[in-house]
Amino acid sequence: MFILDLIGVAVFAVSGAVAAARARLDVFGIVVLGVITALGGGVIRDLLLGITPPSTLRQWPYLLVAGLASLLAWIPPAKGRSREVTRRTVLVADALGLALFVTTGTATAFAVGAPAVTACLVGVLTGVGGGVLRDVLLREIPMVLHRDIYALPAIAGAHLVAAGHWLSWPEPVTLAAGAVSIAALRLLAIWRGRDAPRPPERTQPDELTGH
Amino acid sequence: MFILDLIGVAVFAVSGAVAAARARLDVFGIVVLGVITALGGGVIRDLLLGITPPSTLRQWPYLLVAGLASLLAWIPPAKGRSREVTRRTVLVADALGLALFVTTGTATAFAVGAPAVTACLVGVLTGVGGGVLRDVLLREIPMVLHRDIYALPAIAGAHLVAAGHWLSWPEPVTLAAGAVSIAALRLLAIWRGRDAPRPPERTQPDELTGH
Amino acid sequence: MFILDLIGVAVFAVSGAVAAARARLDVFGIVVLGVITALGGGVIRDLLLGITPPSTLRQWPYLLVAGLASLLAWIPPAKGRSREVTRRTVLVADALGLALFVTTGTATAFAVGAPAVTACLVGVLTGVGGGVLRDVLLREIPMVLHRDIYALPAIAGAHLVAAGHWLSWPEPVTLAAGAVSIAALRLLAIWRGRDAPRPPERTQPDELTGH
Repeated sequence: MFILDLIGVAVFAVSGAVAAARARLDVFGIVVLGVITALGGGVIRDLLLGITPPSTLRQWPYLLVAGLASLLAWIPPAKGRSREVTRRTVLVADALGLALFVTTGTATAFAVGAPAVTACLVGVLTGVGGGVLRDVLLREIPMVLHRDIYALPAIAGAHLVAAGHWLSWPEPVTLAAGAVSIAALRLLAIWRGRDAPRPPERTQPDELTGH
Repeated sequence: MFILDLIGVAVFAVSGAVAAARARLDVFGIVVLGVITALGGGVIRDLLLGITPPSTLRQWPYLLVAGLASLLAWIPPAKGRSREVTRRTVLVADALGLALFVTTGTATAFAVGAPAVTACLVGVLTGVGGGVLRDVLLREIPMVLHRDIYALPAIAGAHLVAAGHWLSWPEPVTLAAGAVSIAALRLLAIWRGRDAPRPPERTQPDELTGH
Repeated sequence: MFILDLIGVAVFAVSGAVAAARARLDVFGIVVLGVITALGGGVIRDLLLGITPPSTLRQWPYLLVAGLASLLAWIPPAKGRSREVTRRTVLVADALGLALFVTTGTATAFAVGAPAVTACLVGVLTGVGGGVLRDVLLREIPMVLHRDIYALPAIAGAHLVAAGHWLSWPEPVTLAAGAVSIAALRLLAIWRGRDAPRPPERTQPDELTGH
């Protein structure tokens, strides 16, 4: 679980750092935002579970991996790498981080004896927390609230981990099933450009009349 | 207190979900923002008091009520319901949620043995926390900082609950007095359109000269 | 350490309140934002260290000092005090608050037995936390992520406190060395207008072609 956590930290750090670079932050801002995005979800998880100081703030490897991964965003873009590629890199890194963090977050909550409903919620918050911090700090509406299907894969995956826990599956199988299903659902949603349904035209009339 | 808490959860969920619908979020964004607005204050309260995992994340009813109430915002608006009605619905739901959360938050803090100053602060933060999260996530300056008198009723109500606690009033009386006074003050402020005083013209000169 | 903490609270309250006044908030918004900016870092520190309820929410002096310092921002600006003076006041108050909070935050973490890496991180988060809350609530990109060198002095100072702890320096010496070095580095960065390096032209091409 430690290794999975580190991979999640690295991909979320890339997602935060690339978003920060797009917002024209300086190198410290990029590294700080990368680290916050990478460790934010785990800190939220540990605070909710009463694990203090948060485990991600107690171990060098997390910080080191987050910092180094953030520096990747500082590499000058190769010729031909367009904004579109950058945007997609953030989306895919974010999807992988989501998958890993939701599953390890849910499993950590079960490990400290939380009931299933708490474990699922904590898992989802572990997954989306870092990205929400990243988007709020860059003054963007968080991706989890925005157009794309984002919350649904996380919730589905957390429930799958809870089901595996309830059925006493071996933990690696449970974690793998959860992570793969989240990543697959999220990447599918990105690929198909699926938006979740929106409420019927509430403000449209105003927009139509131009006021 | 559980029932009051659930009603507070429901009205805050409506306030968050309607605000999310106005911001044109999709159905998942609406439900997620409704749930965050509804449960955010209680989670902040429990984190500050060291109650982990937060009680609002441990029980199905909270989540269920928050989710269902959020879906209300998805109901197509009836003919004649204007933006103004929507705006007022958010304001009134927010005032009721504030009243219920401040009083139950203050009482919860006393129940775990916090001193009076902590209880008042935790109560106010329980009341305003969910709304602040809602506004920050939608990139708006939080209502509590903005024009209207918002913090004052919360602070007054929390002190009333503290006074009731100190005078050993029966708890239902204390809670009712606190909640009614907060809701009354807040609704009065909305109705009279009262703004709190602002500092004297600091940036006005620039605005007058047009630069 | 209590006195240093109170001075840090006062200067951060001024920094938050002046920023709120610049954003044309009313008097309650100004005081609330001043108090949040002043106490936010300490609350984050205590939550991360598992000290609940947070010590800054348990003692009247903190609140009183934060509230009174916030009211300073409401004093009508003297003739000749320009926006530039206001802006610099916020920057300098923020630098002093950063210096005091990073050092006391790091020392508090050591006092509860945290390892060095945690102590440094908690110290930095104590220092930048209040300012980040202030900027997020006013819908600005946090200063810590923005142009100026901000994170570096905090990180350097926290490490200096850790070094002093490791070398068993007397605590007042350690705290003074940490605070002075942070304030000096930060004020130097403000005075020289030094920006940290930014990544090479990633989005510039778009800007150059005007699209």
